[in-house]
Amino acid sequence: RYMVYNTSHTIVPGKLNVHVVPHSHDDVGWLKTVDQYYVGSNNSIQVACVQNVLDSIVPALLADKNRKFIYVEQAFFQRWWNEQSEEIKRIVKELIHSGQLELINGGMCMHDEAAPHYIDMIDQTTLGHRFIIREFNVTPRIGWQIDPFGHSAVQAYLLGAEVGFDSVFFGRIDYQDREKRYKEKTLEVIWRGSKSLGSSSQIFAGAFPTNYEPPPGGFYYEITDDSPVVQDDPDLFDYNVQERVNAFVAAALDQANITRINHIMFTMGTDFRYQYAHTWYRQMDKLIHYVNLDGRVNAFYSTPSIYTDAKHAANEAWPLKTEDYFPYADRINAYWTGYFTSRPALKRYVRVMSAYYLAARQLEFFKGRSQKGPNTDSLADALAIAQHHDAVSGTSKQHVANDYAKRLAIGYVEAESVVATSLAHLTKVDPTLNPTFQQCLLLNISYCPSSEVNLSDGKSLIVLAYNPLGWKRVDIVRLPVVGGDVSVHDSEGHEVESQLVPFTDEYVALRKYHVEAYLGQSPTQVPKYWLVFSVTVPPLGFTTYTISTAKKTDGYSSKSYVSNILKGEQSIINIGHGHLKLSFSTDQGTAINYVNGRTSMTEPVKQTFSYYSAYNGSNDKEPLIPQNSGAYVFRPNGTFPINPEGQVPLTVIHGPLVDEVHQQINPWISQITRVYKGKEHVEVEFIVGNIPIDDGIGKEVVTQISSSLKSNKTFYTDSSGRDYIKRIRDYRSDWKLDVNQPIAGNYYPINHGIYLQDSKKEFSVMVDRAFGGSSIVDGQVELMLHRRLLLDDSRGVAENLNETVCVQDKCTGLTIQGKYYYRIDPYGEGAKWRRTFGQEIYSPLLLAFAQQDDGKPMSFGAASFSGIDPSYSLPDNVALLTLQELDDGNVLLRLAHLYEVEEDKELSGVASVELKKLFPGKKIGKLTEMSLSANQERSTMEKKRLVWKVEGEGSYGEEKKAKRGREIDPRKLEMELYPMEIRTVLIHLELPSSHSRINRFDA
Amino acid sequence: RYMVYNTSHTIVPGKLNVHVVPHSHDDVGWLKTVDQYYVGSNNSIQVACVQNVLDSIVPALLADKNRKFIYVEQAFFQRWWNEQSEEIKRIVKELIHSGQLELINGGMCMHDEAAPHYIDMIDQTTLGHRFIIREFNVTPRIGWQIDPFGHSAVQAYLLGAEVGFDSVFFGRIDYQDREKRYKEKTLEVIWRGSKSLGSSSQIFAGAFPTNYEPPPGGFYYEITDDSPVVQDDPDLFDYNVQERVNAFVAAALDQANITRINHIMFTMGTDFRYQYAHTWYRQMDKLIHYVNLDGRVNAFYSTPSIYTDAKHAANEAWPLKTEDYFPYADRINAYWTGYFTSRPALKRYVRVMSAYYLAARQLEFFKGRSQKGPNTDSLADALAIAQHHDAVSGTSKQHVANDYAKRLAIGYVEAESVVATSLAHLTKVDPTLNPTFQQCLLLNISYCPSSEVNLSDGKSLIVLAYNPLGWKRVDIVRLPVVGGDVSVHDSEGHEVESQLVPFTDEYVALRKYHVEAYLGQSPTQVPKYWLVFSVTVPPLGFTTYTISTAKKTDGYSSKSYVSNILKGEQSIINIGHGHLKLSFSTDQGTAINYVNGRTSMTEPVKQTFSYYSAYNGSNDKEPLIPQNSGAYVFRPNGTFPINPEGQVPLTVIHGPLVDEVHQQINPWISQITRVYKGKEHVEVEFIVGNIPIDDGIGKEVVTQISSSLKSNKTFYTDSSGRDYIKRIRDYRSDWKLDVNQPIAGNYYPINHGIYLQDSKKEFSVMVDRAFGGSSIVDGQVELMLHRRLLLDDSRGVAENLNETVCVQDKCTGLTIQGKYYYRIDPYGEGAKWRRTFGQEIYSPLLLAFAQQDDGKPMSFGAASFSGIDPSYSLPDNVALLTLQELDDGNVLLRLAHLYEVEEDKELSGVASVELKKLFPGKKIGKLTEMSLSANQERSTMEKKRLVWKVEGEGSYGEEKKAKRGREIDPRKLEMELYPMEIRTVLIHLELPSSHSRINRFDA
Repeated sequence: RYMVYNTSHTIVPGKLNVHVVPHSHDDVGWLKTVDQYYVGSNNSIQVACVQNVLDSIVPALLADKNRKFIYVEQAFFQRWWNEQSEEIKRIVKELIHSGQLELINGGMCMHDEAAPHYIDMIDQTTLGHRFIIREFNVTPRIGWQIDPFGHSAVQAYLLGAEVGFDSVFFGRIDYQDREKRYKEKTLEVIWRGSKSLGSSSQIFAGAFPTNYEPPPGGFYYEITDDSPVVQDDPDLFDYNVQERVNAFVAAALDQANITRINHIMFTMGTDFRYQYAHTWYRQMDKLIHYVNLDGRVNAFYSTPSIYTDAKHAANEAWPLKTEDYFPYADRINAYWTGYFTSRPALKRYVRVMSAYYLAARQLEFFKGRSQKGPNTDSLADALAIAQHHDAVSGTSKQHVANDYAKRLAIGYVEAESVVATSLAHLTKVDPTLNPTFQQCLLLNISYCPSSEVNLSDGKSLIVLAYNPLGWKRVDIVRLPVVGGDVSVHDSEGHEVESQLVPFTDEYVALRKYHVEAYLGQSPTQVPKYWLVFSVTVPPLGFTTYTISTAKKTDGYSSKSYVSNILKGEQSIINIGHGHLKLSFSTDQGTAINYVNGRTSMTEPVKQTFSYYSAYNGSNDKEPLIPQNSGAYVFRPNGTFPINPEGQVPLTVIHGPLVDEVHQQINPWISQITRVYKGKEHVEVEFIVGNIPIDDGIGKEVVTQISSSLKSNKTFYTDSSGRDYIKRIRDYRSDWKLDVNQPIAGNYYPINHGIYLQDSKKEFSVMVDRAFGGSSIVDGQVELMLHRRLLLDDSRGVAENLNETVCVQDKCTGLTIQGKYYYRIDPYGEGAKWRRTFGQEIYSPLLLAFAQQDDGKPMSFGAASFSGIDPSYSLPDNVALLTLQELDDGNVLLRLAHLYEVEEDKELSGVASVELKKLFPGKKIGKLTEMSLSANQERSTMEKKRLVWKVEGEGSYGEEKKAKRGREIDPRKLEMELYPMEIRTVLIHLELPSSHSRINRFDA
Repeated sequence: RYMVYNTSHTIVPGKLNVHVVPHSHDDVGWLKTVDQYYVGSNNSIQVACVQNVLDSIVPALLADKNRKFIYVEQAFFQRWWNEQSEEIKRIVKELIHSGQLELINGGMCMHDEAAPHYIDMIDQTTLGHRFIIREFNVTPRIGWQIDPFGHSAVQAYLLGAEVGFDSVFFGRIDYQDREKRYKEKTLEVIWRGSKSLGSSSQIFAGAFPTNYEPPPGGFYYEITDDSPVVQDDPDLFDYNVQERVNAFVAAALDQANITRINHIMFTMGTDFRYQYAHTWYRQMDKLIHYVNLDGRVNAFYSTPSIYTDAKHAANEAWPLKTEDYFPYADRINAYWTGYFTSRPALKRYVRVMSAYYLAARQLEFFKGRSQKGPNTDSLADALAIAQHHDAVSGTSKQHVANDYAKRLAIGYVEAESVVATSLAHLTKVDPTLNPTFQQCLLLNISYCPSSEVNLSDGKSLIVLAYNPLGWKRVDIVRLPVVGGDVSVHDSEGHEVESQLVPFTDEYVALRKYHVEAYLGQSPTQVPKYWLVFSVTVPPLGFTTYTISTAKKTDGYSSKSYVSNILKGEQSIINIGHGHLKLSFSTDQGTAINYVNGRTSMTEPVKQTFSYYSAYNGSNDKEPLIPQNSGAYVFRPNGTFPINPEGQVPLTVIHGPLVDEVHQQINPWISQITRVYKGKEHVEVEFIVGNIPIDDGIGKEVVTQISSSLKSNKTFYTDSSGRDYIKRIRDYRSDWKLDVNQPIAGNYYPINHGIYLQDSKKEFSVMVDRAFGGSSIVDGQVELMLHRRLLLDDSRGVAENLNETVCVQDKCTGLTIQGKYYYRIDPYGEGAKWRRTFGQEIYSPLLLAFAQQDDGKPMSFGAASFSGIDPSYSLPDNVALLTLQELDDGNVLLRLAHLYEVEEDKELSGVASVELKKLFPGKKIGKLTEMSLSANQERSTMEKKRLVWKVEGEGSYGEEKKAKRGREIDPRKLEMELYPMEIRTVLIHLELPSSHSRINRFDA
């Protein structure tokens, strides 16, 4: 008896409609690397093969046109697409156009929402969306962030509404929040992520009842699952149709109890399922067939967009949600706030590569993208994958973290050659000289062979500094040099003031160990000094400087004065030039008096370190569930100040350009506090590592910067680098918090900065990567810099976070090196520094070097360059996010307003950019304003956008609507930007006759 | 880059040809029931779903016409076939005819080779082969017994050559044998299983190098496997094509080293694999593509028949193999001889159902098979499944053993109604009386409600005895009765001598406990006597007897004389009538003097019990692998005589028809030794059970029957109930045995009997089911009756063999009840009793009962009946195996010669059967001699049979060729049978006008 199952049902108004949404959650690397997950190798770690999922979906969907499937991760989809026959491609296109197969989210991966920078989130989403529009001519309508551990406001409004999503769905919200939302049926809300953009970028946001898996009652149908299959063959034993129908209906009614409108979604799938899709559809066909015969509920194959449209059609007024869903805790004592810092070296590497990719795309555009030769695509791909919620989040297995780093390294090498070729082209150097610009990626471990060259015998070193910002820029360059008698000249040959800072011990050790570990041979010589000099660089341009042995006539490279203050010695040390002075008084340990003459700000500041010992869950007694501190979960067991017994020996360095205070806090922490001439902020460099674990206890190292501000439990942290959100200790705006983790429960992700304020002052701290941070004590900011843990926190990674660096087979704990910056401003005046200097932290100068023998000077056609009109510079409140030539020759341009509404008296105003001035010597042919992910015209997106009603607001929505920049006049070509707006345009450049086409696209 | 893989290769003469044979080994029940394995439920025990295997094979084979797959178990295939659409059926037929899909073995299951009776092996193979010929018009050519634990001669010649197989392949042979065959390249042989049929039924037999799995080197490609996949995408990491090719070639060369001819087979599959066939073919396609590019070996998709033809085409002289491959040991201390006895109750139930099915088919034929109404098919199906190598073998999990028993019970109930209807029809009883014949399946626990009826108030009991044998038969009937004053009359009303034997305690206890356990209510009353009377029944016919309250005139039902001999009492007891006398002398315990006046045979016989304590593997020290005694493996740890301290109290019963000696050996063993009037053998009934395990040690209970024969280490056991094979203790004919298990290593399966002989005498013991047995001491026969084990023997069943019977929730160890028979004959004269009485043991009288009130006598139109010509009876050396009306109306007839060459002076001669006499009143229209599994004409099969050359024999093969019965003359219709021949014919009966067609096929 061949059975045909009726799966043709659709929405039935009067009934409870159960949207059966088949999906497979495919991590782009977690316990296995992305390629191992794709081909299904390394199965001893985890049985998972995405090639099987996509191979088996096609015949399964063809077998019954009512069946549906959604696919999310483009990194896997594109690997699969590239190896399909034309026949299968044709079929898949039909399945997508018929709506059977729906591409959801559409980014290369499901990116994390705490660790990624918003620029990387935009780039990786764009990479996926542009492939989809090109291949299938569809634009994804749904956000699907079902596994990230907490949700950021920027994800909702920027990577949601602004990329054309009508809704976003996610699974992980705080267990106390979830309980309240059950009762009040507020799992589904309208989320306005940005105070500045308000309802103009609101989105329908649904939190799943429990997780992204099938409902309770045994509905897992993978080959390896042991849910009871629907046995409907009367000739075989164990017939169970009625029992299975009852279980389905019971689960549906339970979920209906906590959901508004008679539509609920069953997320029929979980990690790497549907490896033989047929096994799921065979059982779902039967369930739908028999459940609908039973009639109590109406079940049918559906997708998140059908579900969203049904929710919208109900014309309901939905509860309003603002700010974000951080931090996340899935149960008591389990705040997932450790991953805000986990694998800090990988987090820094991603941030460095992100900035490099931004600059490299600019240089690739200025020279013209090469069709066959190297381009920036593989770095784009590696960066996209690295945003995955187990990659930059630091929650993958170690071998997978190594794979992410390897991909970034491969991508960097290709991008580096693009930059070198472009600089050679833009400096118009004589090609026959076969000039190659070298670059020094390992400056963070003070290693730069190019600058450590012996300049005695008539050689000199050309240093080119490229400035990816849209503003003219004066900045400091520090290079390790072997010799002392050097002098620096600018491109016009004028001598430039420079300073030699001694190459202190902490750098020597750092450099030697890591060069051996990473490059496999110990460095030949040790630099004696850091050569420090100031450079001035035009916007989107470069200038060159020459370092050579000082001739008689020169005299400027002055050595620093060094003084060592031993332990116990009493003295006051003052550092700083210009307005900002710091005075250290050695007796109260590291207490500093921060004084800014210009703003008459004085503030006692203390920079201290301490560590939390990681909690061992075996101490938890019934009924508590044992919970260790691990890669995801931060669970401190007491805090231990480091070097509490007061004073630390200081080494103080004074000089014309920079004053520095070096402190060896303990054997594995050193700190350098710097004030540069012309910079009104304090730069603090930290080197933390080989955290000792011989006592068998994991440690989580934090630094505290204390001030006297009466911050009244309140502090402000950024959302993925954009809007700042007000945080109040031990408080949540959406529910009355029952505090069980007073420290871990107050940690938030920091991507841009954290600041405190009281009636008079603002105290801002800016970071060089994603860190976890908080303000546990009024006036004090705390950043978790590094974690070394000996226990797994049982959330699946099954590996304790214990990163090491090995030379041959001797391994020591990983050392972290980086910087944070702080400054104190009068109340209301902190934003300007945060936003402007924030751009400088994100986009450091790109340095390139070339050797030159006196005999054969490197005759540059152009010793300096600016990509935009020399007279022009972007407005102070606007940043250039993207200047990129796409593979179709069009130019993708993104400009962003840097300020929120009322964030800064002047700079929160509307800004206007003259686009013509950005393309000197080129004619803007066709200009189209696009969605943020450049896969549809903005106007089309806005027309399609669903309008939602919000509880308590009339049908017109919020009273004060956010203003948006007016449409760009094709002739005037001026782009208007209101606070927090990011506008994206595709430009077709027409080349004026003088530029020959060939030069433009040569290999 | 879409890759097309070249899989089009075929045999290349000069190269090593690697036949890649995809297969899935699907146990028809083992850790899960057959239906759970089919639909993929109960996956927590084992991830296995055969529906997925067959569903996914169709698209996989369609995707590349070079791909091949073999399928073996028809029980699964037919479950799948019944639920396919016409479209899929059409496709599968094409796949079979194109040779892509090859049906191998073809039985409903892969039957065991130790526990099954040859008739059940024939029936289950026929059931599968007839479905295959009907649906696909193909005849399977290959035997595939890759998992059974040792291999029987009957499997090779009867269920191999005689069903048209050109070759048989298997995996499990003794580890010492395997080692020798590696060196001598004798894994592949020509196997002549029958001394009597010789080369006329020889077969090419291949033992796999290690097992039925892929070769070493990581070639398992199930979704759940973690072999390295062939990663040939240069754009992804971990490219490994060369390494995978080298591993493949290395495995091929290793296997070529131990195989003749440049053809080897890779068995690419294992248990329940190919649940998503695509995962295997994707990797095998790549391996074949790249291995052939490499060129060292030639790999291609193949099947066992292509492999067999290649071996044959080489025209090689192969080594000769005779006898069989028993017992099997996969390593030291691991002789798989425990399963010869495991689950003895299930083994008995299968044997009882087998005989009942044979009789029921005869009665179904005599009445005419009903089209819609009940038929014997569901019993046929249940019996077929029960022959599986984990079913009757006793090596399945308990819940699966229960499932086999449940299927037999369901099949029996339907067959019972067929028998009842047929008997009502054949006795021509007045249908309006709505006569229903009851039957008593539970006579083995002395429970028969029909005979336990109170006959006082004018009721009488009709007892019908049906004789399924082809010979006239005088036999004894024993029925439990409640009253003593009864008399028995034959169908002509003559009184028949009967005897009342007291219903002793062991029966009362057995009956009460098991009626409560199985029927859920305790029996109303307890019978006082066994009523014993002799019946005389025509061949393939029945006679009726009436039991009624004894009238004055009657006087025959005489009571037995009972005497109890207490422990320590000295006396001699004589029992027996006629020629055979036994005299018990109580002082030497159970010593018996066996005297047969007719054959002047006198022999001192001892019947003793002992148990082996089951070995606990934890006592094994390195480098030995710990090995427990378990469901498969028998591993004794010392033998313990039961009731060693001599004498056992006796109860002696004398009477006209039977003398019995009842002994309570110990609290859980009782033994009844009987000699019946007119029977020259000793019947011993044993009741063994609730084996005590409170000492935490498993026990394996054996009975020894000792004689004084000088058997010189030699004994003879049957092969699946047919040819007897000579066994010599601690000796193997194929290799020099290194003895490490002196008891377990000398155990052999016993299905028919075991006998010893010396120059003067033969001592034969016949069994009522499959048992493990041996002769550990000269003159002594040992049978293992029951096993209760507390440890698993780590061969996969993961459950210790501890069968229990529960009343409500109180469970006790399973009790076994059964009989063995022994007799001592002059040398050379034992065969006649073994073969003739063996048929009586296999086919007991089928008893049916009907109540009758004196008022309304049950007027039978025919109080007795014979299905064959009243004057005719089968020759003494011929047995009727099958008389069955098939669903197409044809009649399937099988006749078997019962003797081997030179087994009996007279009866080993040629026999001839007059077929017409078997169908009185019917006309044999068309008669066609068929293969044994009736799926092709015998002549066609013989023409197709491959002829093989054997080492040491010229191209004409063995000198003395076996003689076979001549072709059946269509007019004379006489079937000639030479020793061990079984001939199968399909008869189309033309009905003489007098029989109306309707009557023939009424409901």
